Amino acid sequence: MLELHFAVPMAGAIICALNTRLDPKMLSTQLCHSEAKILFVDHEFLQRAEEAITLLNNTQIKPPFLVIISEHGSFSPSTLAHKSEYETLVEEIGETNFSIVRPVDECDPISLNYTSGTTLRPKGVVFSHRGAYLNSIACVFTHGMRDMATYLWTVPMFHCNGWCFSWGTAIVGGTNVFIRRCEPKAIFDNIVTHKVTHMGGAPTVLNMIANSLATDQKKVPHTVEIMTGGAPPPPTILSKIEELGFHVCHCYGLTETYGPATWCLRKPEWDLLPVDEQVKLNARQGVKHFGMGEVDVKDLITMESVKCDGKSIGEIMFKGNTVMGGYFKDSRATQEAFSGGWFRSGDLGIKHPDGYIEVKDRLKDIIISGGENISSIEVETVIYSHPGVLEVAVVARPDDYWGQTPCAFVKLKEGVQVDAQEIIQYCRDHMSHYMAPRTVIFEDLPRNSTGKVQKFVLRKKAETLGSLT
Amino acid sequence: MLELHFAVPMAGAIICALNTRLDPKMLSTQLCHSEAKILFVDHEFLQRAEEAITLLNNTQIKPPFLVIISEHGSFSPSTLAHKSEYETLVEEIGETNFSIVRPVDECDPISLNYTSGTTLRPKGVVFSHRGAYLNSIACVFTHGMRDMATYLWTVPMFHCNGWCFSWGTAIVGGTNVFIRRCEPKAIFDNIVTHKVTHMGGAPTVLNMIANSLATDQKKVPHTVEIMTGGAPPPPTILSKIEELGFHVCHCYGLTETYGPATWCLRKPEWDLLPVDEQVKLNARQGVKHFGMGEVDVKDLITMESVKCDGKSIGEIMFKGNTVMGGYFKDSRATQEAFSGGWFRSGDLGIKHPDGYIEVKDRLKDIIISGGENISSIEVETVIYSHPGVLEVAVVARPDDYWGQTPCAFVKLKEGVQVDAQEIIQYCRDHMSHYMAPRTVIFEDLPRNSTGKVQKFVLRKKAETLGSLT
Repeated sequence: MLELHFAVPMAGAIICALNTRLDPKMLSTQLCHSEAKILFVDHEFLQRAEEAITLLNNTQIKPPFLVIISEHGSFSPSTLAHKSEYETLVEEIGETNFSIVRPVDECDPISLNYTSGTTLRPKGVVFSHRGAYLNSIACVFTHGMRDMATYLWTVPMFHCNGWCFSWGTAIVGGTNVFIRRCEPKAIFDNIVTHKVTHMGGAPTVLNMIANSLATDQKKVPHTVEIMTGGAPPPPTILSKIEELGFHVCHCYGLTETYGPATWCLRKPEWDLLPVDEQVKLNARQGVKHFGMGEVDVKDLITMESVKCDGKSIGEIMFKGNTVMGGYFKDSRATQEAFSGGWFRSGDLGIKHPDGYIEVKDRLKDIIISGGENISSIEVETVIYSHPGVLEVAVVARPDDYWGQTPCAFVKLKEGVQVDAQEIIQYCRDHMSHYMAPRTVIFEDLPRNSTGKVQKFVLRKKAETLGSLT
Repeated sequence: MLELHFAVPMAGAIICALNTRLDPKMLSTQLCHSEAKILFVDHEFLQRAEEAITLLNNTQIKPPFLVIISEHGSFSPSTLAHKSEYETLVEEIGETNFSIVRPVDECDPISLNYTSGTTLRPKGVVFSHRGAYLNSIACVFTHGMRDMATYLWTVPMFHCNGWCFSWGTAIVGGTNVFIRRCEPKAIFDNIVTHKVTHMGGAPTVLNMIANSLATDQKKVPHTVEIMTGGAPPPPTILSKIEELGFHVCHCYGLTETYGPATWCLRKPEWDLLPVDEQVKLNARQGVKHFGMGEVDVKDLITMESVKCDGKSIGEIMFKGNTVMGGYFKDSRATQEAFSGGWFRSGDLGIKHPDGYIEVKDRLKDIIISGGENISSIEVETVIYSHPGVLEVAVVARPDDYWGQTPCAFVKLKEGVQVDAQEIIQYCRDHMSHYMAPRTVIFEDLPRNSTGKVQKFVLRKKAETLGSLT
């Protein structure tokens, strides 16, 4: 996949890294929408790829040529024609003197990244060469990478091209370390063996590391910079993982912003504050990196900037080189995303007096109870700080009297016994009463293929519970 | 000057930082050629500025409005009308809500930098917003600067806008430390007081630090990254300065490449080599930074790349975003500089098998003796390694028999007694006989306003000596 991040654009083509966790139907939808000509597939995912290609038979689309990446140059027989093995192909038709096919215009597309969307309406974000170059540089800098850094991959490369680190590590002449399974033992082992200096990780990865078994952990002989994004890391996880030898760089962005767009740059003076205060400051989404043009929090209707008071809520919006050109073959969605002249993130946020932004919630995840806005993230942050809790997601439960009430889905740590009443009481002890959940349900959280909690699934569940009052 | 690097472009104007070491005549020439509308001048240089403006009376050019930057808000009376004091002016007519005037096109000029040239034909290099942005980022990265670095200025900001660090330090939210006089004591004092992490310095500054009095030195409590460029630092200076607590990053570039364009990235495996070997590797000009498109060493006539054999000599040439658009009001010089489709540096160099380039000499500084090319830099490097030598410059002396022979101008360290014969013998002991100078002259080296040795002055002196044989 890393090789292809260079080979495909250098051949004048566009790379579309597909999510390996998708089912054949969604894969087929994306192959169809993208009109991919060649499909490179790791042997591990061969069956699903073949199923996806078979599903294309019902469409007008010519099935892509299949290139199988086997671990040892061989692959199991398969039913499809038009296929080859990667290394064999490179050896047979690869040219040492191949001249790079450069883009005609630097704003020409380099990659296509599918973000959330349905099989009926896939949303393909188009990255340009220019944007990818600038975001790669900015991310490398934001991550504090210097020349010859060693980067451990847990961020999938189908996720904003690995937050642009697929290209970024090359800028610094870095070493890339890959693991087949993202597990604590593999992470610690590789950090020690390869002297890993930097790694990325979704909050679930931070969670996994923070809660890993002592027997899987290894003493990290140097600080490992870890960049996280996707959702604000809960303060408890943040402090726990730093004790284990990591230094967290908290970023924020969307596929539409090429991945990381802002980061919570730590100021030295924060070190003098009480730890609780520090952790709160560090959990914010922060300031734009130098590749991004502008980030602002604006009123959804008037488009005016909200005050830097840490209270006024608006939508987080972006402008600049590292904002996508648009969604592939979907001018309507593109227009909607840019209505008002800025890219609308769909995230609600505030601006602090120091100019740092903070995400309060997804526009559609806010809970409105008795006329009060409740940030589901704030409630989650409190519940996360409960020592028995491993994971939590809070959504709205419809209510005849209040309109909505917060409903918490909680996964407890192994062997822990806590009941709903204790969680509710804990919340009341640590936040305004109206914000505390009225319902607590213990179960595993449903996640999508990129590891994000599927709040719409939980919202449906909460709906079926009906009104509490 | 730092403020003006932001204020002038943000006002939609072009900054032209004039060399403070120029005489009124040259200053006047540049004011005339640039058609400057406002001249900001530090109180220390007021007299020269006024003389330069007076000289404009003989031209069609309207004299610029003079703004004097005084140290304490006051300034001595002067004979010119149309002038003001900087801080007073800012207070009186400065607007807090001034809207930034952004360039219409990112390739619009941001600055004008005069490089060598005569009063008859000044050469003004035009920097664009785009190029300045990219070179600033690349330089910051090359220098290994991270967020909130502290930068000590010894590089003049009239030199490629301070190698683009005028803007670069802002990218990292850095602190700028200024000194009025570039002297060893001030350098060491400020490093310790302000915890300087990074600084730039021409080879003369490195030389000054390396040869400073023990009483002026202070123990540097942390490694200070020092970026140098302009000429390859002699190996002896390089190793000496590192002993004092500095880590040298050796860059190469020209005003036409916005300052640094290549750097000698140190590979970890070099640490295993003998120190002599290391120092040789580190004295090379290296590889391009990520802002530059391409650097190559090419045959002057055929434009073919020379072999990576560490021997074949060609001209170093550049292409890319961080190459100037051209010389202001001089299409002929621009055409010459870009003849063959690449920017021609005028420097002769080689490519090593590892792809690193090395400057052998300025095209016009090469000495041709008995049909052999002698790199004046190579001869200088050997002479520099003599313990009694402070500075040296080698040029061609015309010769009836050999065509030319190397002639060395040497400045000895204080109190040292060495004669010409000893220097010549030392050279013969350390290099091929034909390369050793036939003439050694002891005197101070003439330098231009940017601190570069004026080889043309020495060449004229050597010419007047006549033939040796």
